[in-house]
Amino acid sequence: MFTANGDYANLKGNYLFYEVGKRARAYAEAHPDAELIRMGIGDVTQPLVPAVISAMHRAVDEMSRAETFHGYAPDFGYEFLREAIHKRDYVSRGIDVSQDEIFVSDGAKCDVGNFQELFSRSCRIAVLDPVYPVYVDTNVMAGRTGTNDGGRYAGLVYLTCDASNGFVPGPEAAEGADIVYLCYPNNPTGAVATKEQLQKWVDWANDRKSLILFDAAYEAFIRTPGIPHSIYEIPGARECAVEFRSFSKTAGFTGTRCAYAVVPTSVRAWMPDGSPADLRAMWTRRHTTKFNGVSYPVQRAAEAVYSPEGQAQTRALVDGYLANAAIIRERLAACGLRCIGGDNSPYIWVATGGVDSWSFFDRLLREAQVVTTPGSGFGRCGEGHIRISAFNRSDRVIEAMDRIEKVLK
Amino acid sequence: MFTANGDYANLKGNYLFYEVGKRARAYAEAHPDAELIRMGIGDVTQPLVPAVISAMHRAVDEMSRAETFHGYAPDFGYEFLREAIHKRDYVSRGIDVSQDEIFVSDGAKCDVGNFQELFSRSCRIAVLDPVYPVYVDTNVMAGRTGTNDGGRYAGLVYLTCDASNGFVPGPEAAEGADIVYLCYPNNPTGAVATKEQLQKWVDWANDRKSLILFDAAYEAFIRTPGIPHSIYEIPGARECAVEFRSFSKTAGFTGTRCAYAVVPTSVRAWMPDGSPADLRAMWTRRHTTKFNGVSYPVQRAAEAVYSPEGQAQTRALVDGYLANAAIIRERLAACGLRCIGGDNSPYIWVATGGVDSWSFFDRLLREAQVVTTPGSGFGRCGEGHIRISAFNRSDRVIEAMDRIEKVLK
Repeated sequence: MFTANGDYANLKGNYLFYEVGKRARAYAEAHPDAELIRMGIGDVTQPLVPAVISAMHRAVDEMSRAETFHGYAPDFGYEFLREAIHKRDYVSRGIDVSQDEIFVSDGAKCDVGNFQELFSRSCRIAVLDPVYPVYVDTNVMAGRTGTNDGGRYAGLVYLTCDASNGFVPGPEAAEGADIVYLCYPNNPTGAVATKEQLQKWVDWANDRKSLILFDAAYEAFIRTPGIPHSIYEIPGARECAVEFRSFSKTAGFTGTRCAYAVVPTSVRAWMPDGSPADLRAMWTRRHTTKFNGVSYPVQRAAEAVYSPEGQAQTRALVDGYLANAAIIRERLAACGLRCIGGDNSPYIWVATGGVDSWSFFDRLLREAQVVTTPGSGFGRCGEGHIRISAFNRSDRVIEAMDRIEKVLK
Repeated sequence: MFTANGDYANLKGNYLFYEVGKRARAYAEAHPDAELIRMGIGDVTQPLVPAVISAMHRAVDEMSRAETFHGYAPDFGYEFLREAIHKRDYVSRGIDVSQDEIFVSDGAKCDVGNFQELFSRSCRIAVLDPVYPVYVDTNVMAGRTGTNDGGRYAGLVYLTCDASNGFVPGPEAAEGADIVYLCYPNNPTGAVATKEQLQKWVDWANDRKSLILFDAAYEAFIRTPGIPHSIYEIPGARECAVEFRSFSKTAGFTGTRCAYAVVPTSVRAWMPDGSPADLRAMWTRRHTTKFNGVSYPVQRAAEAVYSPEGQAQTRALVDGYLANAAIIRERLAACGLRCIGGDNSPYIWVATGGVDSWSFFDRLLREAQVVTTPGSGFGRCGEGHIRISAFNRSDRVIEAMDRIEKVLK
């Protein structure tokens, strides 16, 4: 008799964006003249830049002729793309990562969700709270937690992110964890971690023989000098960290799909019997067995992000979102709301001043016709906050802030 | 301390295509004037058809303007593509599949590799022998087997495919299996299963409360009337079968990447405690948690396969490969070799007449400069066979057959 994976029974419904959508729809139906401004979901709104568009057209044309047609891609991604990533994201910053440690994929969500397949079932996982739900749910599905009572899964280590630690907890809270998921610039809070803060994590991981999964999907939004763009800027990280990067937010690829993971040959890992494990070889096996490469025109599109024009154009794209973020943060702060994020991140994390997340969400929806995301949807420590996304047209952002100001002042 | 997934230690290296490539390279280096003809790997060689190219260009242009830009795709794929799939692949054949049972993805290899995450670890798996290695390796990684001694994993049920059963074994050999992977038209043998043969499997699965994973990646090559294109042509299959389809071989998408899975709402499944499991809901959760959709231009490209021009053009493409396959089969049969496949499949499975697979491979490489795939690489029952792929230009195929004829006659 066929039996299904019982660990799925532990999953709590994640109804966050579903519920946000439902409430927004209900309001819109009841108020057909209201013009909602959506600042909830973290999806880009600006078109692909010209350098990327040209590269995709050229690649599509190549696919139309037998002499230049491309079938299956090389297992780790095309050399031209891996070389561009290597040169621009690592070598140019003086970071020690080699080209054969770079694995091209169709999304950082996929990579970060799939990577836990390489862990033994008994590993104890630490996550930030509030947290990007994929880190949690994929480990629940794999049986690394108990049930969820009162909003937290038994067996997970939750690291409180709040004003007391500047939303960047240190490893002292991760007692007992074998693996920690870190995400900086953070989703949802927009917080960034300094070199010193990340060094503490790396030292902890190396001391404890733990593993760091570093999600750098929002790296392109960092503008403050000295804030690390890669975990490999931290001495010792090559021994204990895997990094995930994406073109989704860097170049507006949420609907185009390209990302990459870095798994250094030097990451130390152990099999359950204590013998050394080669994590890069294991990821290679996983990648070649369960994945079949990224679309050729998409890999050419990603390569174009690294051309001089592509770099200038995508930087301008991100600058535009950051300008929105600065407006949001400044205007909300002027309303007396405590905010973090938004300077090196497209997200602004807003303290609601004691009001619970959903009530504040409802108030902004009803009174300002602005859709946000209630912080409590990201975890217990997100209660009392909302997340506002800067992915929008600037005129809409200003209009939203005008409305919110009227409501709150 | 971090410990890695110990089940990976059970994986045997699958060096088949690596070894094929190595031997071909070594020969080419030693004989720089030899012109090798590669008929080993199952990758398409013909360009994307004009209808697909136009659709992709249009979609890329849409991505260049804010008004028509597309961010994250809907979770299951765009409505336009799912509707086209539903109408042309199912409704037009009178098959009962509903649109919300169709999940668009970036590859059938990915889907078929990922789907086993929904099984409990204790499920007993049956596979055909010879077998597409992904079915086996993904279950080894998930701990559903023991070690591999003598070429077979302990704990798996291997179903012998040979001349005695026409390369289509029945369920009587699957005693004790909770799940069976079936692939028709088959990779590597090219065998097809009749309605009656599949009905036996469906009845067995329903009697035994087992699950069928039906890989129909080569469905477009079926030309013999009456051979099922979908497992859902078989009464009872909606209660016990999941189906995987792909645009890779249908429309030359190996480097473009689009596929889909069908998970009926009516599939019966059970949680480990015996309560009913909703497999479609579980796959939805898996799909939305660990996957982020297929590139918008690629989904538009796949939609174009279903346009009247796209249908005619891709049929002509497949017809071209089938014409190659017919030549290969006929010419090899004339050399006295026993062949199956090639009439409803791009693969021809050739009995080597008692010579072992690798020796025959070496002989064709050295004496005819033709690269094939040794059958033993697909499993113990593949010994004494080679697989020849029809994915090539027809003039190359004829040249290859001329050479092989000279060697064998």
